[in-house]
Amino acid sequence: MADLQAILDGIHAELSSRLGEGKVADYIPELAKVDPNQFGMAIATVDGNIHSVGHADVPFSIQSISKVFMLTLALGKVGESLWNRVGREPSGTAFNSIVQLEREEGIPRNPFVNAGAIAVSDVVLSGHAPREAIGELLRFVRYVADDETITIDDKVARSETQTGFRNFALANFMRAYGNIDHPVEHVLGVYFHQCALSMSCQQLAKAGLYLAARGTNPITGHSVVSPKRARRINALMLTCGHYDGSGDFAYHVGLPGKSGVGGGILAVAPGIGSIAVWSPGLNKVGNSQLGAVALEMLAARTGWSVFGD
Amino acid sequence: MADLQAILDGIHAELSSRLGEGKVADYIPELAKVDPNQFGMAIATVDGNIHSVGHADVPFSIQSISKVFMLTLALGKVGESLWNRVGREPSGTAFNSIVQLEREEGIPRNPFVNAGAIAVSDVVLSGHAPREAIGELLRFVRYVADDETITIDDKVARSETQTGFRNFALANFMRAYGNIDHPVEHVLGVYFHQCALSMSCQQLAKAGLYLAARGTNPITGHSVVSPKRARRINALMLTCGHYDGSGDFAYHVGLPGKSGVGGGILAVAPGIGSIAVWSPGLNKVGNSQLGAVALEMLAARTGWSVFGD
Amino acid sequence: MADLQAILDGIHAELSSRLGEGKVADYIPELAKVDPNQFGMAIATVDGNIHSVGHADVPFSIQSISKVFMLTLALGKVGESLWNRVGREPSGTAFNSIVQLEREEGIPRNPFVNAGAIAVSDVVLSGHAPREAIGELLRFVRYVADDETITIDDKVARSETQTGFRNFALANFMRAYGNIDHPVEHVLGVYFHQCALSMSCQQLAKAGLYLAARGTNPITGHSVVSPKRARRINALMLTCGHYDGSGDFAYHVGLPGKSGVGGGILAVAPGIGSIAVWSPGLNKVGNSQLGAVALEMLAARTGWSVFGD
Amino acid sequence: MADLQAILDGIHAELSSRLGEGKVADYIPELAKVDPNQFGMAIATVDGNIHSVGHADVPFSIQSISKVFMLTLALGKVGESLWNRVGREPSGTAFNSIVQLEREEGIPRNPFVNAGAIAVSDVVLSGHAPREAIGELLRFVRYVADDETITIDDKVARSETQTGFRNFALANFMRAYGNIDHPVEHVLGVYFHQCALSMSCQQLAKAGLYLAARGTNPITGHSVVSPKRARRINALMLTCGHYDGSGDFAYHVGLPGKSGVGGGILAVAPGIGSIAVWSPGLNKVGNSQLGAVALEMLAARTGWSVFGD
Repeated sequence: MADLQAILDGIHAELSSRLGEGKVADYIPELAKVDPNQFGMAIATVDGNIHSVGHADVPFSIQSISKVFMLTLALGKVGESLWNRVGREPSGTAFNSIVQLEREEGIPRNPFVNAGAIAVSDVVLSGHAPREAIGELLRFVRYVADDETITIDDKVARSETQTGFRNFALANFMRAYGNIDHPVEHVLGVYFHQCALSMSCQQLAKAGLYLAARGTNPITGHSVVSPKRARRINALMLTCGHYDGSGDFAYHVGLPGKSGVGGGILAVAPGIGSIAVWSPGLNKVGNSQLGAVALEMLAARTGWSVFGD
Repeated sequence: MADLQAILDGIHAELSSRLGEGKVADYIPELAKVDPNQFGMAIATVDGNIHSVGHADVPFSIQSISKVFMLTLALGKVGESLWNRVGREPSGTAFNSIVQLEREEGIPRNPFVNAGAIAVSDVVLSGHAPREAIGELLRFVRYVADDETITIDDKVARSETQTGFRNFALANFMRAYGNIDHPVEHVLGVYFHQCALSMSCQQLAKAGLYLAARGTNPITGHSVVSPKRARRINALMLTCGHYDGSGDFAYHVGLPGKSGVGGGILAVAPGIGSIAVWSPGLNKVGNSQLGAVALEMLAARTGWSVFGD
Repeated sequence: MADLQAILDGIHAELSSRLGEGKVADYIPELAKVDPNQFGMAIATVDGNIHSVGHADVPFSIQSISKVFMLTLALGKVGESLWNRVGREPSGTAFNSIVQLEREEGIPRNPFVNAGAIAVSDVVLSGHAPREAIGELLRFVRYVADDETITIDDKVARSETQTGFRNFALANFMRAYGNIDHPVEHVLGVYFHQCALSMSCQQLAKAGLYLAARGTNPITGHSVVSPKRARRINALMLTCGHYDGSGDFAYHVGLPGKSGVGGGILAVAPGIGSIAVWSPGLNKVGNSQLGAVALEMLAARTGWSVFGD
Repeated sequence: MADLQAILDGIHAELSSRLGEGKVADYIPELAKVDPNQFGMAIATVDGNIHSVGHADVPFSIQSISKVFMLTLALGKVGESLWNRVGREPSGTAFNSIVQLEREEGIPRNPFVNAGAIAVSDVVLSGHAPREAIGELLRFVRYVADDETITIDDKVARSETQTGFRNFALANFMRAYGNIDHPVEHVLGVYFHQCALSMSCQQLAKAGLYLAARGTNPITGHSVVSPKRARRINALMLTCGHYDGSGDFAYHVGLPGKSGVGGGILAVAPGIGSIAVWSPGLNKVGNSQLGAVALEMLAARTGWSVFGD
C-alpha cells in the first residue's frame, strides 16, 4: 500500500492555499459561525491503521452523514421491507425538494434525501419514545466508532427544530400519504438530533470502517451488517450520497460517499478503508467543495476508485 | 479466478424456467417480433479469455448500449468540453422525459438518457455528413470489438425514424435552446442508426473490454481511452446507465452497466472483465428483466461487485 | 325578469332523478356521513328578493366557499399589497398541490387554492389571537348575510385539524420561504375554522349578494367593498374559483363562482343577483357535480352568463 | 352609451408619454424591427359603429389572436368532440411549455397555448392539403371582418418556420401520443401561416364582432356561430386568453380577450362590442403592456367589465 500519511500530507499542503473556498452553511447560527479555514482528513484502513492530517480531531456537525448510520439501523430493524416506504433511486432534484413526493405519492426517492431520511427516522422510532430512539442511534454510532465520547450537540438540534419548516412540510406531506406512522414532532425530534451528531474525522473514519470491511469493524471485531448489506449501503451512497451532485462525485472521485452540510464527507474504499474529510465551505449543490477535491486527489494517487485504477 | 464457464452454465440452467419473463419492446415491429425466450451471456476477461452460454452468438439490436460507444467517440472528439452541453447526473425521470429539459433549459441530465445521447450525436456529427458519422461509429465499434462483421440493421433504423416522434420532440426542443447545432433530421439520422447496431453478446463483451482494462483492449492491444477516462465512463454507467432503475441495478448488481430496450446489458467489472447479457423481456423501467437477474447472480458468485466482496 | 321561482322549481324537478350523483367527500367523518340525496338552491337578487327550492334552508359545511369571505377581509385589511404574497393566476394543478409552491418559491398561485387561502389566513391573523381572527370572520359573515344564527361547526374544525397533514405541509413550506408570519398552528387554526362555517343556501346567497351589487348589500344597505373590488373578486372567482375545473365551469356556466368540498357553490350574476346551490356529490376535480349542472341550467334559462345571452 | 370616441382619444392622449414601454418580440426579424412607439385602438359596436384612434389602420402581425378564429373554424368542423383532443383549463405555465404535455399525456390544456393551437390546426387540416387549410382560414377571417384585403405575411410565416423549433417539439411530442394525425410539417405549415395573419385594429375589431353579438356579425348579418358557442369562446378567452397572465387580465380589465406577441389584443364586451388594441411592447408574460393598460382604462370608463359596473 502507498504511503498514506505522505499522500495525506501532500493533499493538505496543496490545498492550504485554497482553504476558505465555498460557502459555509448559514441556515442556523451554529453552522454559520464555524471557521471556514479548517480542514481535516482521516483514513482508517481495514488492517487497523489510522492516518490523519489537519483538524482531523476537531468535532464538527456531521449532519446528513448520519443518514448512513440511521439507514443501517433501520435495515437492521425491518430489513428489506424498508424499501416499501423509501425508494433506491437518485432523485434528480435538490435534497429538500418536495415536488418528487407529490409525483410519487409520498414515497421518497432514497434514504439520503431529507424526506427519505425522515421516513427512516420514523422506522427507527417504532416501539420507542423519541428520546430512546435518539439514544439508540448515539449508542450505535459510539459502538461502530468504538468511541464513547461522541455526543449530540443539543444547540444544533434545537436550532434545526426552530428553523426546519421545510422538513416539517416534508414530514406532514408524507404523513398525508400514510408514509409516516408517528406524530410528526416525534419523528422530526429524532431526525434533528441525528443531524446534530458531532464527530471528528478520526471518529467518523473509524465509524464507517464496517462498510469497507464486509460489514465487520476489523479493529473491534464487531460485526455490524452482513457483507451483502455493506455492499448495498455502499451502492446507495455512490448513486445517492451527494444529492444532485452524486453523478459528479462518482465521476471525479469514484468512491461511495455521503456528504453533510457541515462540510464533512464520509467515503468508502471497499476492501481497503474508510475516509473522512472535513472542510466547511460548500459548493452550489451543498457538498463540501474542498472535501470533494481532497477525495479526488486521494483516489487519483491511491488508485482506490471503484471504477478502475 | 472462479470457474467462469461453470458459473455461466449454472446461471443459464437456473434461469431456464423463467425465460420469457418481462415484456418485449413493441414500439417498432422489428423489436416486437423477437423471440422472448432467447437468452445469451458472454464474459470477456482482461486476460483475453471469452466464456459464453446460450444464444451468445445471436446478434440483437443493442439500442441504447450504443450510447456508451458514442460517448467514447464524443469525448475523444471534444474532450471534457462535452460537459458544457450534457450533464453528468442521474435524471430521476424516464429515459424519454422532456420535463427536465424545460426545467434545465435544454441541457440534458446525462449522456445516457435519450436527450443526452441526441446531443452526443450532434457532437459526433461535427465536420461530417450524417452518413460519415454513422460510418465512423461503425468503424469504431468494429475496432473495439475487433470484429469486422458487425453491422447496422437498416430496417430497425428506418422504423425508429418513422415512429421516433418523441425523439424529434427532444431534438427540436434542445435546438430551440441552442444545444443542437446541426439540422434535426441529420442528428436523428445518426442517433437512430446507432440504436440499430446489431451485435451478439460475444461481440459486445469484447467491445466493452477496454472499459475493464484501463482503456486498452488487452486482446488487440488497441488503446482506446486513457485509464482515467475509462474510470469516468464506468462511473457514468453506474450512476446513469439504467435510466430510472440505475439505483436499483447498483444495489442489486453493483457493476457499471448500460442497458438497451432490445434486452441487452453491457456490464463492466473493472480490472477483471466485461460482461454482455441478452434477454428480450423488459421490466417496468425498460431494462432487461432476466439480464439484470443474471448479472446479480454473476456478481454474487464471483464477488465482482465494485462495492465489496 | 324571468319567473325565477318557476325556473328553480323546474331545475329541481329535472334533477330529482339524478340526486346522489358524484362522490361525497370522505376525508373526515363529518362530511362522509352527509346524505348525498340532498339538494338545495337559493337566489338573492339585487332588488331584495329571495327564491329558493329544496333543502335551501339546511346548513352545510361551506368549506372553501369561505375563501371568498376571507379574501374580502384580507383585502380590507391590507389592500392590494396582499398580492405581494399571493398570485392571481389559475394554478393548472389540484387544489392541494405543493409542486407549484416549490417552483414559485412559496408564493401560492391564487387565494382560492389551499396554499393561497392559508396565506390569506395569515394576513387576517395579523394583530389577533387565533380565536379573535375566527371571531372576526364569523362576525363578518353574519354581517354580510344579515343573519346572527350562522355558526362554525367545531366538530368539523377539529376533524380537519386532525387529518390536515397536507395543509400543515403547505403552511410549513410557505413558512420556510418566509411567506407565513405566524406560528403554523395558529394560522391553520384560523384556516380550519373558516372551512367549518356552516350555512344554508339561503344564508349563503344573501352573504354573497354584495358581490353582485357593486359591493353593497342592497337588503341591508351595508357597504362591504368598493364596486371595483367587487368586480375584482368576481374576476378571481371566475378564473380560479373551481380549482382545476375553473375553465370548465366558465365554459358551461359562465358565472363567477366558488365551490367547496361540502358540495356547495356560490355564484354571482353581476348586477342581478347571487346564487347558492348545494348537492354533496362531487365530480372528479372536487366540485359539486349537480350543483354545476343546476347552475348551467339556470344560466341557460335566464341568460345570466357574463359572456353573452 | 358613453362618447366612445372621446374615451378613445383620452386614453390615447394619456398613454402618449408611455409609448415604447415593454419589450418588442425579437425571436424573428420581422417582429423585432417593428416601431415600438406605435399605438392603435378600435371599437366595433353591435349597433354597427366603428371608433378608432392612433395607428388603428396599420396592419400588424396578429400572431396568437388568430387562435380565436382557428378555434371557431375547428368547432364548426368537429363540434364539441374537439374537447377530446384539447382541454379547457388555464395552463398555469408559459405559453410554450411542454411540461404539462408530458404530465397529461399529449392533451394540451387549452386551445390558446401553442400546443393546443397546433392540435386545433391539425383538426382544421382534416380533408385538406395545407395550402387549402390556410386558404380556408384566410377566407374565414375576410368573411368575419367583411374585408377582402386581409393577407398573410409570407415572410413572417417563413421566419416562424425557420426558428420554430419549440413548436416542432410540441407537435412531435403530441404526435408521439397520437394527438396529431397529419405530418408535423403540414400541421405546422398551417400553424405558422395563421400566426402570420396581418390585420389592423379596425379589421380585427370588426372580425371579432360576432363574439360580442350572439354569434352574428350585425354589420353584415352573417351568422358565424350560435349564441351558445359565442359565449363559450368568450369564456375560453377570459380564462385562457392571456397565457399565464389570464388571471391578471381578468382582474384588471374584466373582459374576454386574446393577446398575440405582435402586441395586439382582441377583447370582447358581450352585447356591446369588440375592441382591438395594438402596442408592440410586451410585458414579462408576453402580452402587450400598454394594450392591457388601455383596455383597463376603457373598461373603467365605460363600465363594460363583465364582472360588474
